[in-house]
Amino acid sequence: MQFDVFSLFPEVFQPYLDISILKRAIQNNLIQVRAHNIRDWATDKHHTTDDTPYGGGGGMVMKPEPLFAAVEDVLGAPPTCPVILLCPQGKRFDQKMARELASHPRLALICGRYEAFDERIRQHLATHVVSIGDFVLTGGELPALMMIDAIGRLVPGVLGDGDATQDDSFSVEGLLEYPQWTKPAEFRGWSVPEVLQNGNLAEQLKWKRQQSLLRTLEYRPDLLREANLSQEDQDFIAKYINQKFEESQS
Amino acid sequence: MQFDVFSLFPEVFQPYLDISILKRAIQNNLIQVRAHNIRDWATDKHHTTDDTPYGGGGGMVMKPEPLFAAVEDVLGAPPTCPVILLCPQGKRFDQKMARELASHPRLALICGRYEAFDERIRQHLATHVVSIGDFVLTGGELPALMMIDAIGRLVPGVLGDGDATQDDSFSVEGLLEYPQWTKPAEFRGWSVPEVLQNGNLAEQLKWKRQQSLLRTLEYRPDLLREANLSQEDQDFIAKYINQKFEESQS
Repeated sequence: MQFDVFSLFPEVFQPYLDISILKRAIQNNLIQVRAHNIRDWATDKHHTTDDTPYGGGGGMVMKPEPLFAAVEDVLGAPPTCPVILLCPQGKRFDQKMARELASHPRLALICGRYEAFDERIRQHLATHVVSIGDFVLTGGELPALMMIDAIGRLVPGVLGDGDATQDDSFSVEGLLEYPQWTKPAEFRGWSVPEVLQNGNLAEQLKWKRQQSLLRTLEYRPDLLREANLSQEDQDFIAKYINQKFEESQS
Repeated sequence: MQFDVFSLFPEVFQPYLDISILKRAIQNNLIQVRAHNIRDWATDKHHTTDDTPYGGGGGMVMKPEPLFAAVEDVLGAPPTCPVILLCPQGKRFDQKMARELASHPRLALICGRYEAFDERIRQHLATHVVSIGDFVLTGGELPALMMIDAIGRLVPGVLGDGDATQDDSFSVEGLLEYPQWTKPAEFRGWSVPEVLQNGNLAEQLKWKRQQSLLRTLEYRPDLLREANLSQEDQDFIAKYINQKFEESQS
């Protein structure tokens, strides 16, 4: 799978690609990442990539010409792969979108700087407008790296046997992970739960499922609406909420 | 403002801190970022920082001892600043949280690798558990860099006059930004809207507000529930929806 990233700071990508799972995936030719400098396609003397907005307002706007030229030069005109604009005014990135995008052999990612993109980039060059979250960053470089990481992990062969479990749980079940413990069994007087040390497999599986439900209820109750819950799950949650309610009344 | 980051890959942070607004902020002593290698506090011969989970399951779990030692050695025991664990099982990071965290003079960020953190880290070392979004990454390094970027921008003096507008709009109004255009007025036959070229200021302000509402309605209708809408805003949206409905019926 190939990623083509368009940025004014192409040098920030490589260090993260030189470590861990992505490094191995690149060495094994499972993914390729090419970072292009948008400025190389700006034709004026100063290689200008931004200008003031029509209608006033603070900040600068990324010009259309260098970006259209860069993307079309690298990918052909029009590009045949998804062209993703990283921008807070877009659809929220999540594991479902990562899976959909991982099915493409090639993806283009456009990273903005300055206040905004000229709207013609959004309307006529981008095929997807994607936001990482409701917060303001200096540019699209970190969101692009995150998407490369999240999507790259889904390319067959990239993850080893030991790596894959969390992906399955987060994306398929739609619940938060249950808590985990490792050695030592006791640390500063805090012990690993008895059931994980001495319980049988069936008890442990049931306990993990319940912990997963409780954690989701505590941190992300919104996920429960979409989660795939059995009757036993629902009974467990109802009983837990009743119990909490009665405690609060006594 | 000082950020202390704890990671197994401290080398990935610097390149992003060497560019743009964060670079200037660090040069001006407005923010400092120190990246610590958790492995330096692992006391066994192989500097082990992970181990197998109790109760089975795939993946490895980050051990408690090296992380407690690292954080307490750098920050004191117990630390007096927020200690933030980056983890998909946490509260979602957003601009509101960025503003709250920006009020602290110092923040610690713990980046995981492997499947999970030993639960005692979460319960007894972390003061905040924060998730960047509902997707699976290889580690917490990119989320930590994003938080440094989003929070660092809010430190007084970090942003110049031209930089600040988007922050205000995203965080105060709770709506997506209106579309923007820069020169040329016509590009490949696609023109800048007439109102932005020739309209008066009042017309332009009204148009921008309406575009902001339409964009939020299209991409992130969930934001409208919390947004601060005037009666005029509400009437505009109602009229637009009615019109769309009538078009769909004819």
